[in-house]
Amino acid sequence: MSESTHHEMWEKLNMDLEAHDGLLEVLGKFYGDIYLSQENRLKGAEYLDFVLSEVHGLRIKELQDAKAQGRKVVGTFCVFVPEEITLAADAIHVGLCAGAEAGSELAEQLVPRNTCALIKSFIGFKMAKLCPYIESSDMIVGETTCDGKKKAYEAFNEIAPTYVMEVPQTKSEAARELWKSEILRYMKAVEELTGVTITAEKLKEGIRIINGKRRALQRLTFLRAASPAPISGRDALLVNQISFYDDPVRFTAKINELCDELETRIETGEGVAPANTPRLMLSGCPMAVPNWKLPYVVESSGAVIVGEESCIGTRNSRDLVDESGATLEAMIDAIADRYMKIDCACFTPNQERLDNITSLAKDLKADGVIHYSLLFCQPYTHESMKVDKRLQAEGIPMLSIETDYSMEDVEQLKTRIEAFVETLA
Amino acid sequence: MSESTHHEMWEKLNMDLEAHDGLLEVLGKFYGDIYLSQENRLKGAEYLDFVLSEVHGLRIKELQDAKAQGRKVVGTFCVFVPEEITLAADAIHVGLCAGAEAGSELAEQLVPRNTCALIKSFIGFKMAKLCPYIESSDMIVGETTCDGKKKAYEAFNEIAPTYVMEVPQTKSEAARELWKSEILRYMKAVEELTGVTITAEKLKEGIRIINGKRRALQRLTFLRAASPAPISGRDALLVNQISFYDDPVRFTAKINELCDELETRIETGEGVAPANTPRLMLSGCPMAVPNWKLPYVVESSGAVIVGEESCIGTRNSRDLVDESGATLEAMIDAIADRYMKIDCACFTPNQERLDNITSLAKDLKADGVIHYSLLFCQPYTHESMKVDKRLQAEGIPMLSIETDYSMEDVEQLKTRIEAFVETLA
Repeated sequence: MSESTHHEMWEKLNMDLEAHDGLLEVLGKFYGDIYLSQENRLKGAEYLDFVLSEVHGLRIKELQDAKAQGRKVVGTFCVFVPEEITLAADAIHVGLCAGAEAGSELAEQLVPRNTCALIKSFIGFKMAKLCPYIESSDMIVGETTCDGKKKAYEAFNEIAPTYVMEVPQTKSEAARELWKSEILRYMKAVEELTGVTITAEKLKEGIRIINGKRRALQRLTFLRAASPAPISGRDALLVNQISFYDDPVRFTAKINELCDELETRIETGEGVAPANTPRLMLSGCPMAVPNWKLPYVVESSGAVIVGEESCIGTRNSRDLVDESGATLEAMIDAIADRYMKIDCACFTPNQERLDNITSLAKDLKADGVIHYSLLFCQPYTHESMKVDKRLQAEGIPMLSIETDYSMEDVEQLKTRIEAFVETLA
Repeated sequence: MSESTHHEMWEKLNMDLEAHDGLLEVLGKFYGDIYLSQENRLKGAEYLDFVLSEVHGLRIKELQDAKAQGRKVVGTFCVFVPEEITLAADAIHVGLCAGAEAGSELAEQLVPRNTCALIKSFIGFKMAKLCPYIESSDMIVGETTCDGKKKAYEAFNEIAPTYVMEVPQTKSEAARELWKSEILRYMKAVEELTGVTITAEKLKEGIRIINGKRRALQRLTFLRAASPAPISGRDALLVNQISFYDDPVRFTAKINELCDELETRIETGEGVAPANTPRLMLSGCPMAVPNWKLPYVVESSGAVIVGEESCIGTRNSRDLVDESGATLEAMIDAIADRYMKIDCACFTPNQERLDNITSLAKDLKADGVIHYSLLFCQPYTHESMKVDKRLQAEGIPMLSIETDYSMEDVEQLKTRIEAFVETLA
């Protein structure tokens, strides 16, 4: 990663340069081992490598340039924050750092030890001054999707003012009304932040752009049903991860190019692994950059990953916003409806997630599913037991993994996953 | 406990008689050690001893007799379920068993190991056929106050059909609307269950009765400000615990009698411990019958407990429903407003809890606070860090305890609490 050329910018962002250099060095090596070592990679992976190498560099420079021109940056932690609205106010919507152990010890000053790694990570990144996205954000938006985040944002708010959206817990009509009112409140907040009035025209364009991004990701998901698998799970995860950071229009064009290449591969029967390689789908908690531990272990255990049922995966791309609405009111309703379809474990009941996992596993011709829960993530750990039951009934083998960001359990995971893969071969 | 005379009834309730006999025997001994061994107890404690000794016996017989006359029983887990409405439909409102380790191993078939003891307990009590309240319930009502319960009810629903109320997570106007709609939905469900139409007159009476219960508990809280402490924390906790099981009219009368006795004691300067005994307030998670571990350890460590900031404590009695409303609509609004005042850790932010703890500790002349979190209870564990900061700023010492229902840590707790009490003396 090109850390040297960006030092001045990071210094202005009040980051801890020395610690950040150390982080980039570790990540660069980690990326080399996990990504650059892969065989039969796509040409389109050059885009992924470039974006990742400049994720704290050129992309931050773009944000700073946009800010210099008066645009605002909104930083988020969750797929419930409606990007369409951010875009309609001419603001930039980015995910925040949450995928590495950096600063996790500091985080324990603000949240309990028994907090999931993702939450400790975003707090730790801020406290250790390691996330240029947080430092570039004019508005940070949290939400109430789990107890851990809901309460952590209260503590986080003391070091980084955080606007919180209330996501309801059921899908009743009254819950949808609450959610719609939260979307309207967010719209007003973004208008105030940017000084831009969101018109029907602007919102229509925002919806079109983000639907385009989702369609490109859907196309990628669909193409992964091919055998042999045309792309590694690691690269596909990276595509989903980058979708939270890169400019959405550029991202969409690049991923569609990558999908063109995949189609050619599929036509010629080319893949990243032999056709008889066991195909696994991951399901559960999101994997934020650079949380590539589990995919790496899985793909080093004789299997190939063909799908990610996760917020950094199909949960964020499966549903589109209906584009037929002409008025602002109709579009807000369409946005509310689209987000209420998300099958997050925050909802009770959440039967549709079981249905979605089952049909996705079948569509992708997965031989098995690995359910991934972050340690102390109650919603997904509870649901893993239901997913297991459902998949058993469907005749799809499942392995349940509970882990965090540490590397201590890699060998143990490898042993369990290899044993699971052997049962599928 | 008079197990022998009630065997036939328990058998009809399909309970596990042998295991239940074993449970009652253990509880009887536990109660003897913790309660009957106390000195300077109130005469009014006879009522407590009697209710507790018949909590699975005569009280269940009363429920069965009422059911035989066509009345319905609603079983609940949380102070958010509006008892006023249950009463207005001529139904009986009771808490369900959740305070002992009984059946916790069975519960791990349905919920993750990293689930709090209270949740594992209510599931375990059902699976092990040990709770006559669950077996007597015509309707079981859960709610969405934490991830653990929210997801556990989904699994619990498979063995005991559970109606779930959505409790919002903020106190915005839109959240209050959601909550009001949930109260109306509950009212309709109870009307359907009972065949009783809830009229303004009936609801007014329900509000009056439950406000009366809360006033008696408020009176008890207020009297505990006296020095020397006129009642032990154990007995006061028991009063709060019994408030969830006994008939509310009888309970109110008995607790007012007990308060009369307390007033006499206070006039004569009589107490359960010398005036210079360090006074502690408990704050945090609820302690369901027979979870008396922490109060016992505290009061065996040279301190006396003067208040419980908890759902089984002041959180359930502090706020009254406004009684001025004459129409059903006005009363529903008053109920919605009252329940939205609850300072549960499910809300974000929840600043009022910090204010309430501080003023309660001052009113009760507490020398210190013990914050009690159940292991894996994320909302209260997060808030314990905020409570600690606030109390430090107020000059009130606090000790944070995280524990479960096992007896394994009793000696460790005793060591920590004795050390804490010594600093206060």
